[in-house]
Amino acid sequence: MSNANHPMGIVKRNIVRADQAAVDKLSRFGVATIHEAQGRVGLTKPYMRPIYSGAHICGTAVTVLLHPGDNWMMHVVAEQIQPGDVVIAACSADNTDGFFGDLLATSFQARGAKGLIIDGGCRDVKELKAMNFPVWSRAISAKGTIKATLGSVNIPVICAGAHVNPGDVVIADDDGVVVVPAALAQQVADAAEAREANEGEKRAKLAAGVLGLDMYNFREPLAKLGLTYID
Amino acid sequence: MSNANHPMGIVKRNIVRADQAAVDKLSRFGVATIHEAQGRVGLTKPYMRPIYSGAHICGTAVTVLLHPGDNWMMHVVAEQIQPGDVVIAACSADNTDGFFGDLLATSFQARGAKGLIIDGGCRDVKELKAMNFPVWSRAISAKGTIKATLGSVNIPVICAGAHVNPGDVVIADDDGVVVVPAALAQQVADAAEAREANEGEKRAKLAAGVLGLDMYNFREPLAKLGLTYID
Amino acid sequence: MSNANHPMGIVKRNIVRADQAAVDKLSRFGVATIHEAQGRVGLTKPYMRPIYSGAHICGTAVTVLLHPGDNWMMHVVAEQIQPGDVVIAACSADNTDGFFGDLLATSFQARGAKGLIIDGGCRDVKELKAMNFPVWSRAISAKGTIKATLGSVNIPVICAGAHVNPGDVVIADDDGVVVVPAALAQQVADAAEAREANEGEKRAKLAAGVLGLDMYNFREPLAKLGLTYID
Amino acid sequence: MSNANHPMGIVKRNIVRADQAAVDKLSRFGVATIHEAQGRVGLTKPYMRPIYSGAHICGTAVTVLLHPGDNWMMHVVAEQIQPGDVVIAACSADNTDGFFGDLLATSFQARGAKGLIIDGGCRDVKELKAMNFPVWSRAISAKGTIKATLGSVNIPVICAGAHVNPGDVVIADDDGVVVVPAALAQQVADAAEAREANEGEKRAKLAAGVLGLDMYNFREPLAKLGLTYID
Amino acid sequence: MSNANHPMGIVKRNIVRADQAAVDKLSRFGVATIHEAQGRVGLTKPYMRPIYSGAHICGTAVTVLLHPGDNWMMHVVAEQIQPGDVVIAACSADNTDGFFGDLLATSFQARGAKGLIIDGGCRDVKELKAMNFPVWSRAISAKGTIKATLGSVNIPVICAGAHVNPGDVVIADDDGVVVVPAALAQQVADAAEAREANEGEKRAKLAAGVLGLDMYNFREPLAKLGLTYID
Amino acid sequence: MSNANHPMGIVKRNIVRADQAAVDKLSRFGVATIHEAQGRVGLTKPYMRPIYSGAHICGTAVTVLLHPGDNWMMHVVAEQIQPGDVVIAACSADNTDGFFGDLLATSFQARGAKGLIIDGGCRDVKELKAMNFPVWSRAISAKGTIKATLGSVNIPVICAGAHVNPGDVVIADDDGVVVVPAALAQQVADAAEAREANEGEKRAKLAAGVLGLDMYNFREPLAKLGLTYID
Repeated sequence: MSNANHPMGIVKRNIVRADQAAVDKLSRFGVATIHEAQGRVGLTKPYMRPIYSGAHICGTAVTVLLHPGDNWMMHVVAEQIQPGDVVIAACSADNTDGFFGDLLATSFQARGAKGLIIDGGCRDVKELKAMNFPVWSRAISAKGTIKATLGSVNIPVICAGAHVNPGDVVIADDDGVVVVPAALAQQVADAAEAREANEGEKRAKLAAGVLGLDMYNFREPLAKLGLTYID
Repeated sequence: MSNANHPMGIVKRNIVRADQAAVDKLSRFGVATIHEAQGRVGLTKPYMRPIYSGAHICGTAVTVLLHPGDNWMMHVVAEQIQPGDVVIAACSADNTDGFFGDLLATSFQARGAKGLIIDGGCRDVKELKAMNFPVWSRAISAKGTIKATLGSVNIPVICAGAHVNPGDVVIADDDGVVVVPAALAQQVADAAEAREANEGEKRAKLAAGVLGLDMYNFREPLAKLGLTYID
Repeated sequence: MSNANHPMGIVKRNIVRADQAAVDKLSRFGVATIHEAQGRVGLTKPYMRPIYSGAHICGTAVTVLLHPGDNWMMHVVAEQIQPGDVVIAACSADNTDGFFGDLLATSFQARGAKGLIIDGGCRDVKELKAMNFPVWSRAISAKGTIKATLGSVNIPVICAGAHVNPGDVVIADDDGVVVVPAALAQQVADAAEAREANEGEKRAKLAAGVLGLDMYNFREPLAKLGLTYID
Repeated sequence: MSNANHPMGIVKRNIVRADQAAVDKLSRFGVATIHEAQGRVGLTKPYMRPIYSGAHICGTAVTVLLHPGDNWMMHVVAEQIQPGDVVIAACSADNTDGFFGDLLATSFQARGAKGLIIDGGCRDVKELKAMNFPVWSRAISAKGTIKATLGSVNIPVICAGAHVNPGDVVIADDDGVVVVPAALAQQVADAAEAREANEGEKRAKLAAGVLGLDMYNFREPLAKLGLTYID
Repeated sequence: MSNANHPMGIVKRNIVRADQAAVDKLSRFGVATIHEAQGRVGLTKPYMRPIYSGAHICGTAVTVLLHPGDNWMMHVVAEQIQPGDVVIAACSADNTDGFFGDLLATSFQARGAKGLIIDGGCRDVKELKAMNFPVWSRAISAKGTIKATLGSVNIPVICAGAHVNPGDVVIADDDGVVVVPAALAQQVADAAEAREANEGEKRAKLAAGVLGLDMYNFREPLAKLGLTYID
Repeated sequence: MSNANHPMGIVKRNIVRADQAAVDKLSRFGVATIHEAQGRVGLTKPYMRPIYSGAHICGTAVTVLLHPGDNWMMHVVAEQIQPGDVVIAACSADNTDGFFGDLLATSFQARGAKGLIIDGGCRDVKELKAMNFPVWSRAISAKGTIKATLGSVNIPVICAGAHVNPGDVVIADDDGVVVVPAALAQQVADAAEAREANEGEKRAKLAAGVLGLDMYNFREPLAKLGLTYID
């Protein structure tokens, strides 16, 4: 698989993280809202699920490209974590091995990471929940990994179908994971705010029994397309 | 995929819902029991899972046929909901997009819907749980959908492998989803009752250490088929 | 599928269970630790998931080979259960039907079984949780099964990719399921103990901010392979 | 899975097959054309593939409902085949076992069957190709099946997501399988003919370099929706 | 995944291959026949497919256990190949990388291997077909692999769900792959011969229009179970 | 899913295609070789398969982003095709509908396209083979699509896990699909040439029975890691 058109064995130390104020603002919104606010792009595939429910994180991406069955680079990326980061781990081939467990989580958490998004497997899920270190992964697997091959850190990666540049904003909750390019963070945060602003009013109307058909004026365009009511 | 041999763009307003007394009686039993009681038919495929555990609903089906990535007809079906209904959403192709979230749930709930069965994706799962609006879906996905194409409402559909006519009874719990044809509702409810009646006695025997081999008289037929015990 | 190169219709009554002291010692460790301790082998595939989280069992395997859609042999294996056993159910073809529910669980529990590992479907999950009878399965499905064909009991089976001999030790928790051959049980238990002994120290260092790169002396071998840091 | 809301163990002998003239006319068209001609409905899921390429059949459906791992009813359906029929085999659960091989094909062919559509596995594929007996299946598998349980013959079934009534027209080619309800056969055949009539002209224009954008007048609606060309 | 309860990094040089006369006899039969003849066991999962159709091989197994993304041990197993062997490659985790291509095939062919069964990916499929070196694999993938980790050679492995001991007989054709334990090779070959002996007669009867219902005397047992004919 | 962090409804007319000489040189090599030559990156996922075997194309990418079930933008991208291009079609969600058939192929071919890579379904496969217009797709499906929503043309896309910029070089054969960034085309072509240059010599040695163990000097590093030969 692509991942990516970059040389292997590179660790980029200095990356430009998204503006903190924009990250803070984005942290107020859920994944679905942000995804809509940036034009319905930036989601990982729906096979990425939280290892426990209820977590909601927002931070800046540090990225790592792994090879199947090998988690050596997880130790390399640990050093590049700054407080507020979210680690994005991509893999050069579909693999469900348990690249990540409680020891690495202890290290990531000590460095200030808010969580991990990994297109691979995760283990020690009971301990991770107890530590309050959330992970979104493609699988839960006790399968151990080796330390033999070089990947890269802080290069652009494709993680579960989403393109992530180091420094991008990553938001994850029970609905999934969305990536916002660093350069668009403020604009998307504003759009998310605007989007939510009028949701309360809509919700109240719908709760009162008003139909979306009427609230959104759908009856006319539906009729134009030929929607036919029969008894 | 089939779904179905019917014209598109039709909304049927008047459907015959299953008898309320039969629905009430069916609501006392779980999915597994009802499935057995009607001759081991009527289940959706096991990829249909509740977005949160512990819910148990029983109601009459209003159906909607969607197209991949388009949830426009969800607003059309909302108008056809009557208190006690369960919405059954089928899709013309396998698709995991997030057709349904908290705003639509507010509308469905205001109309009296008990829940949603959707052969597609669902989002805002945290909010839906807080609202106590249960959904059984093939995926959880924040992916937004468009409003551009006509489907149909209250036509027969195939939802996750189950054939559903509007007005049929739909029961869903942690074990999955089962559909009972409206015409058979009373008969299946009675059979479910009969089936459960003697389960208590069986359970007591088994708990006391009696073997199913003896309780069901399996030893003889097994021996006839050649079952051989060795040491 | 293989499963296995053995005749059908056999029930082996006398099996040699792993040494109880070794089983007891193994019960102190998680699946990931034991898997590592025995050389990273013995796991079932990651599609095997607990029907509820938080359970942790360790016991000796009694095995049963089922055919798709037929759970008759579950009643045959029940008789072979001894207190402390874990039932391992393999299937001659991939199948998600609900082979197991609360009645069989009542019987298994009465016989002293600690839980079930089944490469197939399970139902009555709400009741099983209430009974505190844990199951690891490939699916949850209300689909009923028949009683028509012979399988075998206490023969070697392949369950979800793991080879299991009757009497082997089976450990299962939220991370998955691992099988330890009876003959290796004490040795693996000792290795697991040794492995965990120094985890506390490692965890403390990592929590204090020491990097795995330094703690494990990874910098030199990584540099030798050509890992390059850029700014 | 649903399949169907009908009692088990029934063989319906007298079914009303679609009008022969309509079947003959439909046999002139491919699956994609017929699917479009009847309003984009009636296809089986795309996992259904021919066991060899190049076959194209059109006939009337006789249906059979199987259980996983059991092909007994294939012998029952054989008796109900009339020349020109296509056998549609559904299964009560997802299963890839080899329900069908060269001996059954010899029998089906002797009865006049044009081919088999099976939501299960098929074996002896080399021999079937040599016999010129085409099969569309979900898998190729040598796995043998038993003969122990009753299904039904000539009841409505759901085969790979398509609802099929006995007597419906079934067309299959390298693109997949489509089902046309018997009552609509003539109308769909006419629509398919009309659809193909102007395809030749379109093809010639496109081959000459005319763009679909112009031929179908797409530029204006696309611009209205906001399609923007940049350099 | 299990694979297996054996230490890593072992190469067993002396293995006991199945009796040559039995292998020769087995080579006359197809996979489906042999699978039936040994009691419907020994098949790999149906996702294992030939990279080109029409090949049929029968030989003795030399086994290799790979790790995901690493094909180093393929060079180690090459040395252990003797004329008439079939290489069985298992993997410690599900992986589709291209472990095998035309260079390794040249080496394997030079050593006398008849083909490869690999629970992983294969590449250079055009060249392999031209070389007449058949491969059954879970995927076709150009993805290259590394050479960094030890596996083992000639240990028992689980390949695509089938348990294989070195020296077992492996037969593969368009229907899949079956494994016959070395100790049973002659007995299974005899059973296969017996099974085929009366297939010709059966085929002739069925071709003449005799129904399986009559030829196998199925009518009575079906009726006893309650099969009901309606008009 | 990501795809991509770009606005919708954009058609970029002027793209910079890779240097023609480099494209010509790359066209001499297979996908596996080019993938290795550029450092084992750039492949699409292995579910992408040719609709017929034996095709081998190399050209410059024009890209299109589709929505599930909607092929309108295929007509928009047609206008942007120049002779020698390969169309790369990505989709905003996993979808197998038949976005492409013989009419569009006629148009694409008339514009000079060498083939299509589509992360979706394809139909009319018999006709496409007859036209000699190769397609690599995730599925074959007769399912028709609508024309209702805007996507974009010639934006960066993620197609089956591979990141593609318009103008990149795309090579596809029986082993899969690889993407070479335009800026690296010459360098990768040279590396591919160098790689193939010494393959002939290696092949000859291996064919003569020399082992890879000796030719690549693997014995020493394997022994160092602890590979142990036993009898």
